[in-house]
Amino acid sequence: MKKIKLGIIGAGRIGWVHAKSITYHIPAAEIIAVSDIYVESAKKLAEELSIPNYYSDYHEILNNKEIEAVLICSSTDTHADIACEAAAAGKHVFCEKPVDLTVAKIKKVIAAVDKAGVKLQIGFNRRYDHNFAEIKRLADIGKIGKIQTVKITSRDPEPPTIEYVKVSGGIFLDMTVHDFDMARFIGGEVEEVYANATVMVDDEIGRAGDVDTALVALKFKSGAIGVIDNCRKAAYGYDQRLEVFGSNGQASAANDTPTNVSFIDANSNQSDKPLYFFLERYMQSFTDEMAQFIDCVVNDKPTQTTVYDGLEALRLGLAAKKSVAEHRPVKLSEIEC
Amino acid sequence: MKKIKLGIIGAGRIGWVHAKSITYHIPAAEIIAVSDIYVESAKKLAEELSIPNYYSDYHEILNNKEIEAVLICSSTDTHADIACEAAAAGKHVFCEKPVDLTVAKIKKVIAAVDKAGVKLQIGFNRRYDHNFAEIKRLADIGKIGKIQTVKITSRDPEPPTIEYVKVSGGIFLDMTVHDFDMARFIGGEVEEVYANATVMVDDEIGRAGDVDTALVALKFKSGAIGVIDNCRKAAYGYDQRLEVFGSNGQASAANDTPTNVSFIDANSNQSDKPLYFFLERYMQSFTDEMAQFIDCVVNDKPTQTTVYDGLEALRLGLAAKKSVAEHRPVKLSEIEC
Amino acid sequence: MKKIKLGIIGAGRIGWVHAKSITYHIPAAEIIAVSDIYVESAKKLAEELSIPNYYSDYHEILNNKEIEAVLICSSTDTHADIACEAAAAGKHVFCEKPVDLTVAKIKKVIAAVDKAGVKLQIGFNRRYDHNFAEIKRLADIGKIGKIQTVKITSRDPEPPTIEYVKVSGGIFLDMTVHDFDMARFIGGEVEEVYANATVMVDDEIGRAGDVDTALVALKFKSGAIGVIDNCRKAAYGYDQRLEVFGSNGQASAANDTPTNVSFIDANSNQSDKPLYFFLERYMQSFTDEMAQFIDCVVNDKPTQTTVYDGLEALRLGLAAKKSVAEHRPVKLSEIEC
Amino acid sequence: MKKIKLGIIGAGRIGWVHAKSITYHIPAAEIIAVSDIYVESAKKLAEELSIPNYYSDYHEILNNKEIEAVLICSSTDTHADIACEAAAAGKHVFCEKPVDLTVAKIKKVIAAVDKAGVKLQIGFNRRYDHNFAEIKRLADIGKIGKIQTVKITSRDPEPPTIEYVKVSGGIFLDMTVHDFDMARFIGGEVEEVYANATVMVDDEIGRAGDVDTALVALKFKSGAIGVIDNCRKAAYGYDQRLEVFGSNGQASAANDTPTNVSFIDANSNQSDKPLYFFLERYMQSFTDEMAQFIDCVVNDKPTQTTVYDGLEALRLGLAAKKSVAEHRPVKLSEIEC
Repeated sequence: MKKIKLGIIGAGRIGWVHAKSITYHIPAAEIIAVSDIYVESAKKLAEELSIPNYYSDYHEILNNKEIEAVLICSSTDTHADIACEAAAAGKHVFCEKPVDLTVAKIKKVIAAVDKAGVKLQIGFNRRYDHNFAEIKRLADIGKIGKIQTVKITSRDPEPPTIEYVKVSGGIFLDMTVHDFDMARFIGGEVEEVYANATVMVDDEIGRAGDVDTALVALKFKSGAIGVIDNCRKAAYGYDQRLEVFGSNGQASAANDTPTNVSFIDANSNQSDKPLYFFLERYMQSFTDEMAQFIDCVVNDKPTQTTVYDGLEALRLGLAAKKSVAEHRPVKLSEIEC
Repeated sequence: MKKIKLGIIGAGRIGWVHAKSITYHIPAAEIIAVSDIYVESAKKLAEELSIPNYYSDYHEILNNKEIEAVLICSSTDTHADIACEAAAAGKHVFCEKPVDLTVAKIKKVIAAVDKAGVKLQIGFNRRYDHNFAEIKRLADIGKIGKIQTVKITSRDPEPPTIEYVKVSGGIFLDMTVHDFDMARFIGGEVEEVYANATVMVDDEIGRAGDVDTALVALKFKSGAIGVIDNCRKAAYGYDQRLEVFGSNGQASAANDTPTNVSFIDANSNQSDKPLYFFLERYMQSFTDEMAQFIDCVVNDKPTQTTVYDGLEALRLGLAAKKSVAEHRPVKLSEIEC
Repeated sequence: MKKIKLGIIGAGRIGWVHAKSITYHIPAAEIIAVSDIYVESAKKLAEELSIPNYYSDYHEILNNKEIEAVLICSSTDTHADIACEAAAAGKHVFCEKPVDLTVAKIKKVIAAVDKAGVKLQIGFNRRYDHNFAEIKRLADIGKIGKIQTVKITSRDPEPPTIEYVKVSGGIFLDMTVHDFDMARFIGGEVEEVYANATVMVDDEIGRAGDVDTALVALKFKSGAIGVIDNCRKAAYGYDQRLEVFGSNGQASAANDTPTNVSFIDANSNQSDKPLYFFLERYMQSFTDEMAQFIDCVVNDKPTQTTVYDGLEALRLGLAAKKSVAEHRPVKLSEIEC
Repeated sequence: MKKIKLGIIGAGRIGWVHAKSITYHIPAAEIIAVSDIYVESAKKLAEELSIPNYYSDYHEILNNKEIEAVLICSSTDTHADIACEAAAAGKHVFCEKPVDLTVAKIKKVIAAVDKAGVKLQIGFNRRYDHNFAEIKRLADIGKIGKIQTVKITSRDPEPPTIEYVKVSGGIFLDMTVHDFDMARFIGGEVEEVYANATVMVDDEIGRAGDVDTALVALKFKSGAIGVIDNCRKAAYGYDQRLEVFGSNGQASAANDTPTNVSFIDANSNQSDKPLYFFLERYMQSFTDEMAQFIDCVVNDKPTQTTVYDGLEALRLGLAAKKSVAEHRPVKLSEIEC
C-alpha cells in the first residue's frame, strides 16, 4: 500500500501524540520528517519512531516535495503563519487549536487555504471522542428529536501555571473554546452568548487578569438554549460531560473511568473517579481525528472540522469575554467576522 | 400521647397528600376538621380518613379554639388572605407554595405572622427530598468545600393546560419557583439573575404569553454561580436533578426510579425511567416536611422554610421575568422587597 | 365500603409491620383484634392503631364470628397448629414463613386448609418486592426467553444471636428458605440440590451446629441451573440481588439504596450503600403482599403464595442440609413429601 | 536502547494480536522472525509490521541464535512439543493457553523448562485485565478482608462452530479454563469441584458430546467457596464479570462498554451493551501481559503466570468433567498431577 507522507512541525506533547497515532494506528500514512525549534526534541521523536528526517527549521518540511500534508503542533502564536505558508506550499494542513487568538489572522488562513485548494483540519479532537460522537450520532438520526437544551460540563484537574494563564488569551479562548466547538457540533450556530465568570480557585489567576470559574449561557439560531460550565480545577480530576435534551428524549455522556470496578465496605460504596488527564481521556479521539484527517487527504473528502470552525469558536470566546466585560448578553453578530 | 389538633383548608390533591401523611405517619398530630368551597370534596376526605368535621367555609376552622394549626391547601389566590386571617386567629400556619404572586401580599403575611407570633412554614417540599437533603447535609458538613457551582435540572413530564398557564404567573413563578428555593437552600442568597427563555414545546404556551423552555443563570452573593434549566415537557418523564460543585468535590443527585432492575438483550441495555409524576417522586418529602412542621409547632422550634423563603423565591421569579423582558442580567436588588 | 375484619395473632415485630400496612394502606380491611401471649404487647399494638380488642389467648380471635381472616405472626413453632385451628374455625389464613420445620406438620396444614376450603397465603414477601416482581414480569412476558441460569445473592448485615441460631433449623431452613422460594418463583420446580457450606463469619455459629456461608447449586426441572449464595454477615449491609439469564437476555436487580446521591472528591467516587435492614428494604413488599392477601379473600381469588410453596421451600432446605451432610448432590425426590 | 529479539510461531489471530502489541507498545522488544505452516500468513504479518524474516518452519526461529524468546501462538496440539523444543534451544517461552489438554504433556513442558532454566509464561491474559487486576490489587492490600466467596460470570456472544467444539476438549477445558485460572488468581488453590452442566443453547453441541451451559461450584483450600457460571451464548454479547466477597466488603467488576452514553426517551432508559468480542474487551490485557513477559525476560524476573498455572487450570477442567460424568463433587487430588 502506498502511504501518504507527512511532516510534523513541533515535537512537543501533542506532536508526540499525533506521531504515535500515525505510526501505530494509521497504516495509510507515514511520517518522514519532524521539526522543532529545539532540534533535540525533534531528534528524540525521530529516533523513537524511526522517522528518517528531523530539522530545527520547519521550512525544510515545507520544501520537501514528497510531503503531502503537515501537522502544525507548534506554539499557538505560530499556527496561523505556518498554516499560510504550508497552504502556499501546497500541503494539506492539520492545525492544532486554537488557530489564532485574533479573527484577522484566522481569516488570512482561510484565504490561504482557499487559494491553495488544500485541505485544513483543526484539532478539535473532542468531536471524535467515543461518547460525544455517539451523542452526535443519536442527534443526527433523530433519536433526540428537536434539540432544546445542550449542557456541557468541562473542568480541568488542575489550573495551568500563572505564566501560561497570562498568555493564554483567558479561559474563554483557551479552555471554553473546545466547549464552544462542542456546542456548535451538537446544536449548530450560536446567536448570542451571556457569560458569568468569577475567581474561586486561585486569586493569582484573578490578578493575572483571568477568571477560573465560568458559566456561559447560549442561544442557538435554532431557538435552542445551551449552557457551558467551566472550572480550572476540579478536586476529583478531569470532568468532561455532555447532555443533550430534545423533544424525543435526552442523551448524556458520563465521564470515562480507569476501570468498572466498584468496592463496597462498611464505610462506603466506591467506584472509580474519572480518568484524570486529557491524554488518557481523549487518546482515542486523538487517534480517530488523525485517521479522519488522513482519510480526507487520501480520499479527497472535505474535512469535518475546518478553519471556519476554528474561527467561530474563537468568535464565541471573544463574545464571552465581551459579555463579562460589559455585563450583558452579546450577539455573535457584534463580533468581527 | 396528646395529639396536636389540625384543620385542613382545601381538600384538593395536595390537601389529600398532607391529610394522609398526617393520618398515617405523624402520630403527634390529628386532623379534626377539613374545609373546601366544594363541600363534597371536604366530606369525601373527612369520611375516608375519619376526620370528624367538614365545612365549606374555612372560617369554621379558624374559629375552632381546639385547632392549633391549619394547612392552607386552597387555590393560590386565596393563600395570602387566609394566612393573614389564620395568623390573626392565633393559628400556626402551613401554607402551600406560592404564598402569592405579588410581593405586597406576601409582606402582609409576614407582618401578620410577626404580629401574631405564630409559626408559618411554606410548602417547599423539595428541601425534604431524601436526595436533595443529603446533598444539603454534605454541603453543611463541609464535604463539598466552598460551593462554586450549583446546577439544577427541573423538567415536567407534561405541560399544564393552557387555562392553567394563563393564570399561573408564568413558568418562573409557577415552576422555577421551586428551583429558586432549591438554589437558595444550597447556595444561599442570590444577587443577580439572567434568564434565557423560549417556546419549544407548544406554541399555544407562547400565545398564552408564557415560555416553556428556560435557562436561568444565577450569581450568588457568595460569589458562586448557578444555573437552572427548565422545560414544561420531558418525553421521558419527570426530571429532577441537582449537582453541587465545590472546592473539595461534587455531589449530584440522579433521578429516583421505580425499580433497580436492568434488562439487557441483543438490542439494548435498559434500566428504569425516572418516577413519572411528582406525587410518586416527592411523596417521601411531603411526609417529611409535614413531620417537620408538626415538630416545630409541638416543640416550639423555628420553621426552616419560612414565608421569607416564599418571598425570596417569588422575587427571583420576578427578576427572571424582568431579565427576559429587558434582555439583560437583573440584580435582585432591583425587585421590590 | 364494607371492610373485611381481621385478627392478628402475635404482636411482635412482623405483627406490627402487617398491622400498620393494613391500617394505613389497605382500606378494604380492618383489624378488630390482636392477641399475644404477652398481653402487654397486644395491648400496645391495639392502642397505637386503635384496634378495639386485644387478648392473650388467640382462641378468642378464632372464636370471633366477625373475623374472616387471621394473620399468624407468632413464633415459628406455633404456626402449624394455629393454622390448622384457624382453618377449622373457617378463617382465611395469612401465615408467616416458615410454616414449620417439618414436612409432616406442613402436610397437616395442607389437609386442614383443603378440608376447610379456606385460603392460605405464606409470607414469602420477597415475591412482592418491586425489583423481583419486575423480573418475574419480564420473565412471564417472554422478554428473558427460555430461562437458563438463575442467580440469587442473599446476605444479612449481621448474624442472629447464637441462641437464635440454635433453634433456627440452620441457615438453609431459616435464611435460604426465602431464596429457595425466589428460585421456584422465577425458575419453577427444582429437581436437585448441591450445597457447599462453611463457617467463615463466626466460629460460635459452627459450634452451634450451623454454617454461616453457603452456596447452593440448583438443577431445575426445566433443565435450567441456579445458584444461591448466602452469608450471615456482609460488612456493607443487606445484600439482596437477583439475576436471571435466558435465551433472549438477562434481567438483574441491584440493591435498593437510601438516596441516589453520589459524591466524588480527590479520594473517591462514592454512592450509597444498600438499605441496611430488611424492614427498610422490604417494607413495600410487606404492604403489597398484604394487599394481595386481602384482595384474594375479598374477591375470592386463589392466593399466589400457598402452603404448598412453604412445603417446597422447606423440602429444598432439607435437601440442602442433606447435601452438606452427605457431601453429594441430593434429588428433591429423596426428601419426604 | 538495546531491544530483546523475539520470534513468533503461528501467525493466526492471536499471533497478530501479540505482534501488534510488541511493535506498537513495547519498545524493549522487537520481532525479527515469524513462522507459520501457512507461509503466506507469516509473510503477510511480516510485511505488515516490517518483520525482517518469515518462515514456514518454526525450527528456523528456534535455530536463530539472536532470538532470545519465542511466542507460541500455533494450534493447541502443537503447544507442548514446541515449548519443549524452544526450552531446549534456550529460548524463553510465551505460550498461549491451553498448554495442552493432557496432564502428561504439560508435565513434560515443566520438566523441559526447569532443565533449561528458561522462563515460561502462559497466556492467561485476563489476569492483566484492568478490572480484574484492580480487584486482585484490592484483595492483596487487604481491602476485601478474608475472602469468602468468589463469583465469576463468563459467557460468550456466540458458540464456536461444531467442528471446533468436537476438538476443543469441551467447555471446561476450552472456555472455563480461563475462569479456573481467574478463580485461582483471586482465591488461591482449589480443593474440590462440583459441576452442573446442560445443553440449552444448541442441541448440536450436545450431540457433539459437549455442554453449553454450566455452573461450577468450588471449594478453595482457604475454606472460601466459589462459583463459575458459563454459557456459550449470551444474546447481549460478551459477559465477563467478577465479584469477590470478603470479611471487609465486596469488590465487583462490571462489563466494559463502548461508551458511557445513556439515552432516555418515552420508551426506555438505555445504556451501552458490553463490548461484544474478546479482542475488544481484552485488548488492553493482551498488551499488558506481553509487556509483563518482556519485562520478566529483560530484567530476569519470575513470570507470574507459569506453566504450573496452566497445569492447575487443566486439572480443574478435568475435575469438572469428571464431576459431570460421575455426578458428584470431585476433589482436585483425584486428578493426576
